[in-house]
Amino acid sequence: MAKPLILVTNDDGITAPGLRHLIRYLKDFGDIVVVAPDSPQSGKGHAITVDDTLFLNQMSVDEGAQKEYSCSGTPADCVKLAMRELLDRKPDLCVSGINHGSNASINVIYSGTMSAAIEAGIEGIPAIGFSLCDHAWGADFKPAEAAIKRIVAESLEKGIPNGVILNVNIPNVSETELKGIKVCRQARANWREKFDKRQSPSGKDYYWLTGEFELLDNGEDTDEWALAKNYISVVPTQFDLTAYHAVQQLNEWEL
Amino acid sequence: MAKPLILVTNDDGITAPGLRHLIRYLKDFGDIVVVAPDSPQSGKGHAITVDDTLFLNQMSVDEGAQKEYSCSGTPADCVKLAMRELLDRKPDLCVSGINHGSNASINVIYSGTMSAAIEAGIEGIPAIGFSLCDHAWGADFKPAEAAIKRIVAESLEKGIPNGVILNVNIPNVSETELKGIKVCRQARANWREKFDKRQSPSGKDYYWLTGEFELLDNGEDTDEWALAKNYISVVPTQFDLTAYHAVQQLNEWEL
Repeated sequence: MAKPLILVTNDDGITAPGLRHLIRYLKDFGDIVVVAPDSPQSGKGHAITVDDTLFLNQMSVDEGAQKEYSCSGTPADCVKLAMRELLDRKPDLCVSGINHGSNASINVIYSGTMSAAIEAGIEGIPAIGFSLCDHAWGADFKPAEAAIKRIVAESLEKGIPNGVILNVNIPNVSETELKGIKVCRQARANWREKFDKRQSPSGKDYYWLTGEFELLDNGEDTDEWALAKNYISVVPTQFDLTAYHAVQQLNEWEL
Repeated sequence: MAKPLILVTNDDGITAPGLRHLIRYLKDFGDIVVVAPDSPQSGKGHAITVDDTLFLNQMSVDEGAQKEYSCSGTPADCVKLAMRELLDRKPDLCVSGINHGSNASINVIYSGTMSAAIEAGIEGIPAIGFSLCDHAWGADFKPAEAAIKRIVAESLEKGIPNGVILNVNIPNVSETELKGIKVCRQARANWREKFDKRQSPSGKDYYWLTGEFELLDNGEDTDEWALAKNYISVVPTQFDLTAYHAVQQLNEWEL
């Protein structure tokens, strides 16, 4: 029987330590093909390249049995190109990450990591995005290893429900501090942006986006609650954005 | 009493005919401020500019009472900059579009038009994205005028439910062929990509994304069904991506 085929991608780029750790954690689960951006793509949301060229380069960043390709496009482009141009069969799983930084709560909307996983989900491939709540390039991914392996093993054995993508976030704590894994809902939250306004040498105003995360949710069933309590959060995430609860109210409008 | 403040944006760029028509249709509803990308941003999904500079330029494309600004960033950046740097009060409504091309069914995931509206929704601003199912720059927006005005009037009068954004798509037919407005759910669909593989003058392979839309849904309550029957579709859309129906199943995993 063929080993499971696992497509691995991310948004921090093909050389990112989070991706390199993920490849090592996954290597005993199946045949690994990596298709990842050739440069950082954080905050790219579900962008795709519709009016520009795309390049793919086979390469070898680390030793190992995995095949690796870098792609000039977005995380979603990586998944599309892998499916249509590189893989000879449908992957059994797509794993994106490990992201350097949280994709919990509203961050899922802006996340390139999750957009790659969601793109795979749209294609009918079981998919997971992993993120560690530490932006540092030198972040410690080791405490996450056991939980990542357990979630991947359960995903392959039990099957992720169709149309559902797992958004897994890992708190930035040591292995002994980790309390376990909780299935959660996405917390209500927002970013309070502050734009840092500057002047160019020629006197033109420009802005840098900065901001502070604002939690708007006191629930004890959210990903933010779980992370604050040192649990790994797993949010089942979907791409049917219909707000079914609002249909009746809108049907009362005079349209 | 102050007139309603309406923030207008799009993803096709500040000079796009769809935006220019939208401004004219909205001008009697309130004070209009336009903050739109300085270049086309189709397919940008919910991208934001996290590691680059952003520029804003006040300008005047058409005559009228509206204030207009072009922005070097994505549609979501336009909304963030408008909120934090340009507007002296919270808008009563954000309207994005009129997009040149459909944002029905799975297109909502890739849509810059809808990402701007969703960004406003995250900020607690009632928001609507309008799209005409015709990619042509010279598309005929006139048949959509009456329905757009009715939807905007009802939105201001009745109030869009909190956390809900309206995704409105308009079939490309004449005014007499339009059958009315239907509240719908997002149809299940996918893009069957085909990459057009070419060689650069120096012999390097590259790809252009092309593809065909594939409807995977026979329901008669979807946006695609409504559009095919010459109805305008209104899908209430949300940014809580939690797949609540999957929580129980995942809780049975050994995690």
